Parts: sequence; structure tokens; C-alpha cells
Amino acid sequence: QVEFEYDGPSMKTQVPGPRSQELTKQLGDIQNVGAVHFFCNYEESRGNYLVDVDGNRMLDVYTQISSIPIGYNHPALLKLMTNPNNLSAFVNRPALGILPPENFPDKLTESLLSVAPSGMTRVQTMACGSCSNENAYKAMFIWYRNKERGHNTPSDEDLSSCMINQGPGCPDLSILSFMGGFHGRTMGCLATTHSKAIHKLDVPSFDWPIAPFPKLQYPLEEFTRENAQEEARCLEEVEDLIVKWRQKGKPVAGIVIEPIQAEGGDNHASPDFFKNLRNIARKHGCAFHVDEVQTGGGATGKFWAHEHWGMDDPADIVSFSKKLLTGGYYHRDELQADKPYRIFNTWMGDPSKNLFLAEVLNVIRRENLLEEVTRSGKALLHGLYELQAQYPGLLSRARGQGTFCAIDIRDDATRNSIILKARDKGVLLGGCGERSIRFRPALVFKEYHVHLFLNIFNDVLAQLK
Amino acid sequence: QVEFEYDGPSMKTQVPGPRSQELTKQLGDIQNVGAVHFFCNYEESRGNYLVDVDGNRMLDVYTQISSIPIGYNHPALLKLMTNPNNLSAFVNRPALGILPPENFPDKLTESLLSVAPSGMTRVQTMACGSCSNENAYKAMFIWYRNKERGHNTPSDEDLSSCMINQGPGCPDLSILSFMGGFHGRTMGCLATTHSKAIHKLDVPSFDWPIAPFPKLQYPLEEFTRENAQEEARCLEEVEDLIVKWRQKGKPVAGIVIEPIQAEGGDNHASPDFFKNLRNIARKHGCAFHVDEVQTGGGATGKFWAHEHWGMDDPADIVSFSKKLLTGGYYHRDELQADKPYRIFNTWMGDPSKNLFLAEVLNVIRRENLLEEVTRSGKALLHGLYELQAQYPGLLSRARGQGTFCAIDIRDDATRNSIILKARDKGVLLGGCGERSIRFRPALVFKEYHVHLFLNIFNDVLAQLK
Repeated sequence: QVEFEYDGPSMKTQVPGPRSQELTKQLGDIQNVGAVHFFCNYEESRGNYLVDVDGNRMLDVYTQISSIPIGYNHPALLKLMTNPNNLSAFVNRPALGILPPENFPDKLTESLLSVAPSGMTRVQTMACGSCSNENAYKAMFIWYRNKERGHNTPSDEDLSSCMINQGPGCPDLSILSFMGGFHGRTMGCLATTHSKAIHKLDVPSFDWPIAPFPKLQYPLEEFTRENAQEEARCLEEVEDLIVKWRQKGKPVAGIVIEPIQAEGGDNHASPDFFKNLRNIARKHGCAFHVDEVQTGGGATGKFWAHEHWGMDDPADIVSFSKKLLTGGYYHRDELQADKPYRIFNTWMGDPSKNLFLAEVLNVIRRENLLEEVTRSGKALLHGLYELQAQYPGLLSRARGQGTFCAIDIRDDATRNSIILKARDKGVLLGGCGERSIRFRPALVFKEYHVHLFLNIFNDVLAQLK
Repeated sequence: QVEFEYDGPSMKTQVPGPRSQELTKQLGDIQNVGAVHFFCNYEESRGNYLVDVDGNRMLDVYTQISSIPIGYNHPALLKLMTNPNNLSAFVNRPALGILPPENFPDKLTESLLSVAPSGMTRVQTMACGSCSNENAYKAMFIWYRNKERGHNTPSDEDLSSCMINQGPGCPDLSILSFMGGFHGRTMGCLATTHSKAIHKLDVPSFDWPIAPFPKLQYPLEEFTRENAQEEARCLEEVEDLIVKWRQKGKPVAGIVIEPIQAEGGDNHASPDFFKNLRNIARKHGCAFHVDEVQTGGGATGKFWAHEHWGMDDPADIVSFSKKLLTGGYYHRDELQADKPYRIFNTWMGDPSKNLFLAEVLNVIRRENLLEEVTRSGKALLHGLYELQAQYPGLLSRARGQGTFCAIDIRDDATRNSIILKARDKGVLLGGCGERSIRFRPALVFKEYHVHLFLNIFNDVLAQLK
């Protein structure tokens, strides 16, 4: 198996083509298909190119909602599948919390722990991003209550009241989150998600505090003072909310935040903002949870987006999923649940995903992909700046770190139209926030892919103008 | 690859042996290992036998918390892995909700839909049992609110209030669950889980109604009248709670129940109880959700435990995971979310698990495994009755359907001691409830495995007496 990629997009039909439409109709008898874009031929997809069932080959700058780390059908991953020593990990999925396989500690060490955030030597795998955050929240609640108790022995009243969902066993604790944030869609996570109404509508929730996330003005260098004021305003609001919710009898056990609000519109804040937020958490005795489900895995040019803050002690908990292929969270030692079966479920992750992750990390190191991302990201952002200068009424607020970039379009309708037009020209893009396009290529997106993309994007914009 | 199984347990050391202890210490630097039983050599495990890292070979009557459908390293599953056409499904995990693979509708049809519960033609896959139940609850809330509205167009107030976790957009709806039930550990699921305090302690919850689950007296034929009264009492309480919570302004959108309360102690109820409960749900306009995460997949002798109720319209939602290898839920047409992205996440399941499931279902049909289970289950329950007659002070309440059996031990300490002693003799068992042992063999557990198990179990009991 040699590394092999197509030399560019190749379009045979509009997208979705006739075969995709037929399959969408078929699937519509089984599921709601309102979100289906088209059907894929994953066998024929390679590297940065996704091939659909009508033979269209598209440059993928969205990568399955940012979840494909090193492109489609990477030879290293295919090779892993042909190694007979690995078969058992796929065929016999264990209950990891009680009966782990022999190589589990070694696999964790060579995969997840080899990229552990600063200050963290402990990690818990989970099946997906939502479960990772749910369990991270539970870990923070458990830690907080033991801190309140001064010991970890629950009272008889704790034990009996929790069985019927009542306090003190089920305490009125809260997680502070940010407007525009996205942390998943299960009910605990959903109470901290505030990016789109359709995610939350009709689902009961918790009365938890929600702080404003800074709305920075661009270009950053022209609005230094305003942006600093905006960040200070948000931090002040965070402290006010912590005090207010403590007074309400619903103390904030933890603060959860994304390094870049991804679903919510690629909203950035400065390293100083995060440093100050970390200090506020510490001052008020709240755990600090950095959700790297979308930002983690290298797309910002560092393995974790929080590394851009330059802190030795960036967080108490860092959760991940998507490009890491397995979900889970790292945590500082104090955040480990004090007793077994408190953080637990049947599968607790999936060792077959750890196998893939270990190989992905090998590829990232061998091919210096973080440097590639930094290089491609510079070219991408530079290209976006140029386009934004060229189409000032249409584009604004080009921003990003590594290839984790975004740009705003003048309105929602135009944004959606650009995404569809680009697709028909062979480029897959995704939206985020109210009127942004987010760029989420795989780590193997090289400078020549950037230029290929920018040319097509330019064509689309020229037609719109 | 020929089908191959060991001819019995073979023990080299106490369990955990020295190698397991060494690995537990190693893993203890990374995770809480309080729940780890021992480390496994999955490569050497076969059929009903789990081999550990110290070379001990044990008859597995617990099967990774009831999640291994057709034993370890089944040749059919290994063969599937060597088919090059399947590689892509493992290496390229799609965002199923937007970009499904070409064979997805066909794979759903040949796998999950081929065993769909009566009255259901629609299924949504999810990554695990908790996510399945969380999304099933969301589907019930969405359905209920649209019913309340009389249409599915949310008001501006709905849309703005839900963004900040407040009503009417985040309504005060509830799910009615049962004391002793287990439905998962994420925060929505956990509010309906009431089996052990350690699962719930310190985690905020919802004020949702909790009904008593019938406590049947055994042998059933001696307590017909008492058990009927007990079931009537519980049903009456259900109706009272529905009325009470409606008056409290927290209407019951759905009722969730297991056909056999599994974690909670293998608590059974009669088909009449479930029929009446289904009718109460219908009468009060609540959705009826049957959680078959542990009971589904054939262990009761029917593919779904609810089939024993003999109803054409058993439920509005049936959720599954574990032996089905993928999580998810079936639902009646009305329970489908009206708009895309309401029930959604990045992965929405995993097509590689659907591949395995399709093959597992082929094996179940080809080898008539449901009949085997019925036969083995009769032998198992008969054997338990005999042992219970032989050790009346020690054992009681033998019960079960298919091989999904349990027996009560005189107290918690004795129960735990029996499980450990059986393990050192080469039989793996699990506990449930306060003092029960649950039997959860794979579907390939034949009559001779039953006798092998009963002999060893008898030895353990004889030593205890």
C-alpha cells in the first residue's frame, strides 16, 4: 500500500446526485434524513478527497464534522487492520472498567498519555464526546461535594435521598458555561450548550449560570483596547454569576469552556482571557474544564488548542473526542472519583479505537503534521485575508489558528448558498454560528490543497459578487 | 477457521493472578482501578471461555456485563474482519447523520430492522446505551411538546428561552421511572436510574416521579393472589404519580421501564403488569419506552424480552445496546423528531458495529440460537430450583427467562464470597441488586455448559454450607 491521493476534485453530477437521492429516499423510510448531505463511497475516498456514490470527488475541508484526523483510508490505518494481532481488539469488545485487555495500560501510555495536557497523567476513555463531558461533569460534582464535606464519607441521608433524586444526595450544584458554547446533546451536556435553539428546544434543563463569551472585533490589532475591555466585561460577569449562584444555593462546581467556540461560530478569545478565567475558577474553588472535543488533535497547529495559552497548569479537566477517535477526558489527580463504579459504564470506550489513535499519533509525528498544519494554516489565513480585502461587502472577520479557521459571510442565506455552490465545484465546507464558514481540513491538508481550495472558493465568490 | 472451544475451565493461579496484579498496579497510575477484576487475554479466549493474563481459563456466565452475544472470537466475526470490502467501515468512521455510506440503508435493513419490535419500522443508532436512552427521552419530550402545542412551530419565546435553559423553551416535563431501575449514568438517564446510591450520589438530578416496581414473592404459583395485588398496587401508584406531577406542573412525557430490572436485582413482573402499564401510558398521553439494553438480543429466549408479553403494540420506543453491539432505539413513526438536527451528534453510531451485528444475527438464525437459549435456560432454571431445594437457607427466589436467570443469596457478604469462590474454580459470575447473582451467558451457552456450571456452583455451595 503506497500513499496515494487524487490530484484534485472531479465532479460528474450536481450534489446530491441521482444515486444519493435514491438512497436518501430509501433511508427516509427508516430515519429522519433532513440532515443528510449525500451518500459516500468511503472505499474510493482517499486523503483529503471524499468520493460520493455518484462518482463525484470532493476536496474535504469539513472532514465529517472535524473528526477525520489524517484523511480517508490512510495506508497506516489500513495496514493496522491487516495485522492479525489486532483482530481480537475489534471482535471482542471488553467491559474495560472491569476486564481490560493485557495491552490496555501500554496502549493508553503510547497513545493518549503521550499527548497528555500539561499537569495531567490520568485519563478516562469514553465512547463519544457527550459521554466524555457528562462524566467530566460528574467528576467535578463528586470532587466538589467531597471538598464541601471535608471527607469522602457520605451520610445516610446523602445515600437515601440520592436514590429519589433529592438533596442532599443529589445536590443543587451547577456548571457555569458560556453563551455560544457547545458541549454535546445529552441532558447534562445540553444544559451547558448554547449555540442553536434547535439543539435545546423542548428538552428540560437545569437552572445553571451562563456567562457571555467575548465578542472580539476584527482585525484584532485595530481593536486592542475594545477587545481587552470586552474580555474584562465577560470575566466580571463570570465572577458575578459565581457569587449569585452560590447565593441562590446552587454553587458552581465547575466552569466549562472551549478554547475556540466551534459550533457557536469560531469565537476566539485571548490567552489572557483564559488565564484570568483559570484564576477565577481557582479563586472560587470551581474546577476548570476545557472542552477540546472539536479543537483537540492538532488542527490548531498544536496538539491541544489550550497550549496556545502557554500555561503549565491550563485546566483541571480536558475532554476530547472526534479526531482522537475515542472519547474521554484527562484530569488532574484530585479530580479522580474517590470510589470505583462512580465513573463507570459497560464499555468505557473501545480499545479498537485506541489502536487507531496510537497509529494516528505515529503518523502525526513521523510526518511532522503539526508543522504542516501550521504552514498550511498560515497560507489559508493569508488567503482568507486577501479574499476578504477583495470582497469587503461579502466577507469579514477572517480568523483562525493553524488550519482551524473561519470567515464570516454577509448573511445566513449567502453563507448557505456559498457552501452549496462550493460543493458543486468540488469543495466540502461546513457552517457554524449565525453566518460563518468553518474550515476543518484533516491534518494532511498541505499548502497545495490550500491553494486549490482558495482558487475554487474565489471562483464561487466571484460568481456571487 | 473452524469453530473451536475449550472443553472446560482450567485454573493456574488464584484470580487475580500475579500478572493481573502487576497490570492493575500499572493501570492504577492512570485510572481508578477499584472495579478491575483482572486482565484478559482476549486473543486466547474462545466461545464461552474467557482466558486471563495468568493463563486461567474461565467459563464466562457474565460476558462483559451481558454484552458478548455469541462468545469470544467467533469464527464468523473473525472472517468478517478478513474481508477487504469491510476494511473501509473500520478505518473511515463517518458522521452518519450527514454523510452515510452507500450500504447504510441496506445494512440497517438486514441487521436492526430484521429484528425490529412489533409495530416499529424506524430505528436510530447511537454509540452506547446511555446515549440511546438520552436521545429516546429527547424524542419523547419533543413529541409531547408538539402534542401540547397542537403543531410543531415553536414560538419566539420558546426559541429564546431555551437558549438560557428556561421555560417555555426548556419545559418542566418529566420521565416516570421505577425504583430499582437502571437506564444509564449520563445526567438524563441517571435521573431515571434507581438501583444503587453510588451511581447517583453527588450528581444533580431532576424532580421526576419514581414508582414502585412490583416485588414478587416466589415460587410464583404459591403467591398468585399476593403478586396480583402487588402489581395492582404499583400500577395504581403510577397513575397517582402521573396525576400528581401534572398538578405540580411537570407533566410526565414518557414512562421508561425494563422488561426485567437487571442491575436492580433481576426483578420480574407479569405480562399483565406490562400490558396494563402500556394502557395507563396511553390513557394519560405519555409515551411508553421499553429499555432493552440488557434484556435485548436473545438471552430471554426471544429476541426481545417484551415479546414474552404477547402484544402487537408493545411500546412507543425500544432502546438497545450491549449484545446488539451498537446502541440505538426503535420508535413508532410519531416519535420521530419533526426536524433534522434535533436528534443528532457527530457519529450517530458506528457502521463497523452494524457490520458485526448483521453477522451476529446471521449466526443466531443459522445456529437456531434462540431455541438453544430456551433449552439451556430450562436446564439452568431447573438446576437452580434443585440447588435451592438442596440449600434452602442459602438460596432462594430462583427465577429467569431463557438463560437470563438469577437467584438470591442469603446476604450480600455471602453472595460476594460465592462469586469469588466460583471464580477461583473457573466460573465467572456477576452480582445484581442487594443479594442476587445474575446469570448472563452468551447465546452459545449450551446445555452441557449449564451442567458444567451447575457442578462447579454446587461444589462452591457445598463448601459454604
